[in-house]
Amino acid sequence: MMELTNWLEKRVRLSPGKTALVFQDKQETFLELYEAVQEVAGKLASFGVRAEMYVALLGRNDRETFLMIHALQQLGARTVFLNNRLTATEILFQTRDAQVERCFYVDGFAEKVNGMLAISFTSVMEAPILDAPLVSHFAMEDVASIMYTSGTTGQPKGVMQTFGNHWWSATGSMLNLGLQAGDGWLCAVPIFHISGLSILMRSVIYGIPVYLEEHFDEIRVDAFLRSGEVTMISVVTTMAQRLLDVFTTRYHPNFRCMLLGGGPANKSMLEACFEKGIPLVQSFGMTETASQIVTLPPEEALLKIGSAGKPLFPAEIKISAHGEILLKGPSIMAGYLHNESATKASFDGDDWFQTGDVGYLDEDGFLFVLDRRSDLIISGGENIYPTEIEHVLIAHPNVLEVAVVGATDEKWGEVPVAFIVAKEAMDTALLYEFCQQKIAKFKIPRQFHFLDSLPRTASQKIQRHRLKR
Amino acid sequence: MMELTNWLEKRVRLSPGKTALVFQDKQETFLELYEAVQEVAGKLASFGVRAEMYVALLGRNDRETFLMIHALQQLGARTVFLNNRLTATEILFQTRDAQVERCFYVDGFAEKVNGMLAISFTSVMEAPILDAPLVSHFAMEDVASIMYTSGTTGQPKGVMQTFGNHWWSATGSMLNLGLQAGDGWLCAVPIFHISGLSILMRSVIYGIPVYLEEHFDEIRVDAFLRSGEVTMISVVTTMAQRLLDVFTTRYHPNFRCMLLGGGPANKSMLEACFEKGIPLVQSFGMTETASQIVTLPPEEALLKIGSAGKPLFPAEIKISAHGEILLKGPSIMAGYLHNESATKASFDGDDWFQTGDVGYLDEDGFLFVLDRRSDLIISGGENIYPTEIEHVLIAHPNVLEVAVVGATDEKWGEVPVAFIVAKEAMDTALLYEFCQQKIAKFKIPRQFHFLDSLPRTASQKIQRHRLKR
Repeated sequence: MMELTNWLEKRVRLSPGKTALVFQDKQETFLELYEAVQEVAGKLASFGVRAEMYVALLGRNDRETFLMIHALQQLGARTVFLNNRLTATEILFQTRDAQVERCFYVDGFAEKVNGMLAISFTSVMEAPILDAPLVSHFAMEDVASIMYTSGTTGQPKGVMQTFGNHWWSATGSMLNLGLQAGDGWLCAVPIFHISGLSILMRSVIYGIPVYLEEHFDEIRVDAFLRSGEVTMISVVTTMAQRLLDVFTTRYHPNFRCMLLGGGPANKSMLEACFEKGIPLVQSFGMTETASQIVTLPPEEALLKIGSAGKPLFPAEIKISAHGEILLKGPSIMAGYLHNESATKASFDGDDWFQTGDVGYLDEDGFLFVLDRRSDLIISGGENIYPTEIEHVLIAHPNVLEVAVVGATDEKWGEVPVAFIVAKEAMDTALLYEFCQQKIAKFKIPRQFHFLDSLPRTASQKIQRHRLKR
Repeated sequence: MMELTNWLEKRVRLSPGKTALVFQDKQETFLELYEAVQEVAGKLASFGVRAEMYVALLGRNDRETFLMIHALQQLGARTVFLNNRLTATEILFQTRDAQVERCFYVDGFAEKVNGMLAISFTSVMEAPILDAPLVSHFAMEDVASIMYTSGTTGQPKGVMQTFGNHWWSATGSMLNLGLQAGDGWLCAVPIFHISGLSILMRSVIYGIPVYLEEHFDEIRVDAFLRSGEVTMISVVTTMAQRLLDVFTTRYHPNFRCMLLGGGPANKSMLEACFEKGIPLVQSFGMTETASQIVTLPPEEALLKIGSAGKPLFPAEIKISAHGEILLKGPSIMAGYLHNESATKASFDGDDWFQTGDVGYLDEDGFLFVLDRRSDLIISGGENIYPTEIEHVLIAHPNVLEVAVVGATDEKWGEVPVAFIVAKEAMDTALLYEFCQQKIAKFKIPRQFHFLDSLPRTASQKIQRHRLKR
């Protein structure tokens, strides 16, 4: 077991007076934050939270959730991050699958944890402060966070991210993007996603502030990028597009990296960014790789438009015989929680992680991602797996066959669209309602088309590409 | 065993066209360097060098030695770095103690390996190139380098530095000093010392050039620091002083770190640097910690003059009951080669490394190094720190250099004695009076000896044991 001294405590020792968090225009230093975190940890301890316990957290991008995340780490708990866009059914599945012993939620989400023994943040804040033992060290092999990804087939799986995964991800990113005095990272991506959580981890390791935004508001973000305070930001394609839509004057020269993840970007958008001097940096990564693992070095951004870049130090990449992108490196997950078979299936015989994505390396070793899993739909940065929606719809008594594909959408990049073979004619509103009870709003198909039969190959596989057209 | 992909190969994949080495005003890229290293590795292989073999290297700060260092790493050999200022007797001791199987030397040093089965660099360069297997990965736990510490007492011991030690040292330094596009590190300290070797390792990990200088020439270095090409440099006190002596105009704004190591610095020199806008960064480290492990953050340099700083992320520090500086962290050596008892003796029961240095932490956690524990003078039960007296004497306008050591005394056990390099001849009574105004009587040296120069080690550390004799 390799142990490093508790990162937050270390950071406070190193730079207590540096800004750690800027939220709703209020700044807090690492020392102030640490004191608040210790208090929350003491309150959580009064609910029995202790080291190695699996604890679910249903939060949002705000200061309270931020404190909870750090407090749970200080107690040595393993946090199961719940996506607040999920339905109560989906959340119930994840908390059961992870066998969580406690569940904490932001007050607005009470109905999503209905029937569970969940504890509201308000109850936590009102609790007495116990003198709880905080961990002195983080073991690199220890699980720090669990995030569920819905696979193309079957049930969602809990990705176990260790402290080591987060550490190597942060240093790998630093070796590519550098670290400068005055750096600050804007986080308008969800902190229950690895894109957001990784910013929180980097903040502590680097000693730089997180500019935490509740939602992505292009007007506010635009102002930040012109202020010089924010030097880095993580975005998905739709956010970059929305920033372009309101772009007026050049961003501040201090602003040096718009890290683009969460799916492929179209070339015209990339070119529009470069024309405006926006330092866009493309990347490729997933929950299983603890955020970006392949990133385009800033100095090559213009030379290799469309490429996701090269694997961060010291990660390795290769393309399988079937064109699949394989990865190796210390930021790759420990495995799927309570799911030995899925873990085994995700690595090949030589311990290469099989991303399920298809791509190629050009002659200079730059990765080009061809298809984010041929059937995956990416809508506003969220991964939508068609099979998950298909499984919901097929359960409807009037649905005989179903296929879901992505349709291009100006605002969201893609939206799901369903093709249905029905027993008898029916109102689409009924299908919409049916979905509402089971899956998050962003997963519900925007259109329902009725066909006599689905186009299939000779071997009876649905031809999604024909439906797309 | 944690393995990382071969760093040099990875660096070449990431940034083949970036400058890796600037030597005698000639630039080479990582790709060019790598090709040259592969060739040298093939030649070394024809002398039977292979993985896990202990190989001694007697080189100097030049391109050939640079290539040899990397070539030995590529072959998986463990390099025993010989200090080229040592005598043949000392070198013989070290190569025997390390049980090296091969010894390579730069041609000028033939007499230092007289009688040994040593191979000259010329012979290597003339050898055929074997198609030798290069290592695909560096295991973090594997020994990369061995360096003998002179040790103020007893026989020299071979410090085993692992790849992990070098890695953590490089990232810890980066988290403190940052990493910027255009960085370049000037190496005029010996590459057979950890101060120099650590620059070579950082270069590969960061992807920045080493400006390798054969000797420290203050006129050349001054020109580099004013050019904007060099952004970082490692120096010892005498180098900083020599740069001050030739200082004319301000250094280039790109130049952002003069990393000072190798022993305590006097306050007046530090202040002279800050007056001239020289970004001096004090540090503390040793062969056993794979270079600096406590460093003053640049932004605190002026606030904490005289402090060595705080332990780099994620290293830990504490002061023992006896005032000794104790350290913990992943950059601390695996142990002394073939010397279990010395290894055991250097760690306390809780695995803290005992530095042998005495110091204290101020109320903000900054380290102030007082002295080598072995240099401590105990006089009539009083602890006397030589550096305290030295700081008093160096402030005298006629004193150029000074060292204070303990001399055996029948009555007091020990008494302080001063060795001085003076501008011009002077009366010792004047020095005595000078001290009287500033320090307690028991601390005033009983004798003042005048020398033309102080005996120093290859790394410019004063050899107090020689003065003692």
